[in-house]
Amino acid sequence: MTEFSLADVDRHLTAHRADGLRDLGEFLSIPSVSAASAHRPDVRRAAEFLAERLRLVGLEDVAVLQTPGHPVVYGQWLHAPGRPTALVYGHYDVQPADPVELWTTPPFLPVERGGRLFARGAADDKGQVWMHLLTVEALLRTAGRLPLNLKFLIEGEEEVGSTHLKAFVTEERERLAADVVVISDSSLYAPNLPAIVYGLRGLCALELTVRGPARDLHSGEYGGAVQNPLHALAELLAGLHDRQGRIAVEGFYDDVCPLSAAERAAAARLPFDEEAYRRDLGVPETFGETGYTALERSTARPTVEVNGMWGGFLGEGSKTVIPSVAHAKLTCRLVPKQDPGRILDLVAHHLERHRPPGVRLEVALRGGSPATLAPLDSEWVRAAARALRAAFGADPVYTRMGGSIGVVPAFTQHLKAPVVLMGFGLADDHIHSPDESFDLGNYDRGQRALAAYWLDLGVARGT
Amino acid sequence: MTEFSLADVDRHLTAHRADGLRDLGEFLSIPSVSAASAHRPDVRRAAEFLAERLRLVGLEDVAVLQTPGHPVVYGQWLHAPGRPTALVYGHYDVQPADPVELWTTPPFLPVERGGRLFARGAADDKGQVWMHLLTVEALLRTAGRLPLNLKFLIEGEEEVGSTHLKAFVTEERERLAADVVVISDSSLYAPNLPAIVYGLRGLCALELTVRGPARDLHSGEYGGAVQNPLHALAELLAGLHDRQGRIAVEGFYDDVCPLSAAERAAAARLPFDEEAYRRDLGVPETFGETGYTALERSTARPTVEVNGMWGGFLGEGSKTVIPSVAHAKLTCRLVPKQDPGRILDLVAHHLERHRPPGVRLEVALRGGSPATLAPLDSEWVRAAARALRAAFGADPVYTRMGGSIGVVPAFTQHLKAPVVLMGFGLADDHIHSPDESFDLGNYDRGQRALAAYWLDLGVARGT
Repeated sequence: MTEFSLADVDRHLTAHRADGLRDLGEFLSIPSVSAASAHRPDVRRAAEFLAERLRLVGLEDVAVLQTPGHPVVYGQWLHAPGRPTALVYGHYDVQPADPVELWTTPPFLPVERGGRLFARGAADDKGQVWMHLLTVEALLRTAGRLPLNLKFLIEGEEEVGSTHLKAFVTEERERLAADVVVISDSSLYAPNLPAIVYGLRGLCALELTVRGPARDLHSGEYGGAVQNPLHALAELLAGLHDRQGRIAVEGFYDDVCPLSAAERAAAARLPFDEEAYRRDLGVPETFGETGYTALERSTARPTVEVNGMWGGFLGEGSKTVIPSVAHAKLTCRLVPKQDPGRILDLVAHHLERHRPPGVRLEVALRGGSPATLAPLDSEWVRAAARALRAAFGADPVYTRMGGSIGVVPAFTQHLKAPVVLMGFGLADDHIHSPDESFDLGNYDRGQRALAAYWLDLGVARGT
Repeated sequence: MTEFSLADVDRHLTAHRADGLRDLGEFLSIPSVSAASAHRPDVRRAAEFLAERLRLVGLEDVAVLQTPGHPVVYGQWLHAPGRPTALVYGHYDVQPADPVELWTTPPFLPVERGGRLFARGAADDKGQVWMHLLTVEALLRTAGRLPLNLKFLIEGEEEVGSTHLKAFVTEERERLAADVVVISDSSLYAPNLPAIVYGLRGLCALELTVRGPARDLHSGEYGGAVQNPLHALAELLAGLHDRQGRIAVEGFYDDVCPLSAAERAAAARLPFDEEAYRRDLGVPETFGETGYTALERSTARPTVEVNGMWGGFLGEGSKTVIPSVAHAKLTCRLVPKQDPGRILDLVAHHLERHRPPGVRLEVALRGGSPATLAPLDSEWVRAAARALRAAFGADPVYTRMGGSIGVVPAFTQHLKAPVVLMGFGLADDHIHSPDESFDLGNYDRGQRALAAYWLDLGVARGT
């Protein structure tokens, strides 16, 4: 039986790099935008494309599994008896590409520029899913087998809250049973500074509709006599925060798990240049809840964020109108101990209580998932740290991530498996923004890290 | 020489009513939306269509006169020496038809339903311009001449502030010289209750852009660390009013000409059923500046009104984004003594002074025109009252209008001519809204009123 050799894996990855990138380009060119019903066929097509690739690299029992929403792609390789089983989770759906006009090149026409691959989904998360595929392929082609048992669960609804995957995980807990869940949907802390993410914020969403007059009105004939729904919406949204950036919703902070002194000290030791951060973002100053650093605020403190608002005349020139209706889309990022349902109720209640005169409100709650904190003192995490150090030449830092991965609480609850988040993006990948891209150096190094991780887990833990 | 006969005019109008409506339908089918550059050719086409009709009814020296913006249509009939000269002003441009999906039938496909003609511009102002044309035609066809000298000045930029017409009036003051300016771009007070409008609000406009991060950001990764331009915009717009509906811009009310006790008493005597008004508008309650009635607030008090605002993700589903930029379009309605330039400066200054941290503001001022108050004790007004009484069977009421007609101050200043506003719309014409329409009973009666007015002015004042 051929021995496992990281050197052989490395050679294989190098030799087949161009093929892998070409195929990834094909994957990225499918606009699998899960939020848009018009893209439903594309989402399906991406699932089928991915399933076909899973089969080609050598995974077995590959299936595109229907859910009430977008399908889940599953595959496994279970021929390492006595060795651990890892479940690899990722997603093949992507964020909408709007505003498309701000992209340098079209979002679904992948192109390499300056050592980066540009496309919607390049980093979040198709590119990182692809790294897992190529790593498995390299191990199977060079050693004929994997050093441990692997299951792949790649979903199509991560960007819309993993609504149906949570039920899927509950129902399929036996099929998905694993010793550890590994997720590559996060970032290095900085170039050449890998990170293991131990905290994720939770997420919940709502939509607010403000209804005033039954029809749009001439703002000359009626201006002053009736409430303008745009004024009412502005007042409601402005009332969600105080001028110090603190959330003004009564009870919002009640259950917030405070940052420990040790965590704050660890965060303070991370290399974080707030002036460089400010400059990169192009803002005159950073801003947020008083009493916390920008890093703390964006990872370990909750938020209420307006993601979109609109009403009235948005066209060229002017139209002197009082519109009948105004809209806003909001999401909250949650920290440990906050319950998404309770938070939505608090926000909805706050909006109703502060309803300005002359309008009616409609608040639609969109559900969500709680925050998670993973334990750091496990063999799974120590092995990940060794693998990252081997590939990147530096010890990883341990960080909390501001984003959310909706299904993680379901893994913890139903699979009882620890979750290891080792991702290979970078802050300047511009995920969810125009010109999303993925650093191809990290793409290469990340595949070495994953191969080293599987070998470490399988060989070291093999009996 | 044939004598003037209102009975003959009436018979002519009745006999040719269908032709006139058919031609008006053709006029209304041209989408002469002055605010939208895509409609520039349509605006031009409407001007040429109108000029051709002016020639056909018998006006002379008809011309489509270029301005730096949309053209002005001019025509005259000056063969009544010793008789007064009236300048008829109106506009052939229309408001945008957005939101088009709320129209029962397409905005530029005129259709008659329940005694009303539905189309964008039916009441504001193409239909009322058309009444003037048909009245002139009826007089010329039945008597071979007009009882007074008439000049027609029909512009294409009323809905965008009459920017270029003001300069045109200054330059062309000799051509436009008149004893009285007559405008039909207003409404009856109620069905069968005609009105002479003696006050118009002024108007000025600005656009506000709030810029935050240089690119759209992932609201998980960055939420809490930077100011969200949507939050900043909401705060700025909310800060324009206090909770009592009073404008919070420092100095905004400084120059406001207060309502006299006599005016308030006269307004209170007008039939105004606030509960019926509320019900018609479909609002839970009316709302505005404390201390004034809805009628006063919408005609004789100034406003700051947001006509449109937008930013972030407006599509289906959700996108967890902090947008780079947010926008708002605002207009102010002004009352006598308020200077549009000073008001714009005050609002811009207020916005800058209340700029939330973490964003930059851009404020573009769009100019405007002041409010006007016309004297009521003139022979021109008394004759208008007689004509309206003859046609509608009721004495007119004297009202202030909440809307604005941007060029009126230029008429007062440069032509030194009194302005008489006798219009034939109704509040439920839904001007500037979906399903704009014009009551055809008022269309018919209004033509009789105009013919009676011209005869009264010409015959009574003839020497």
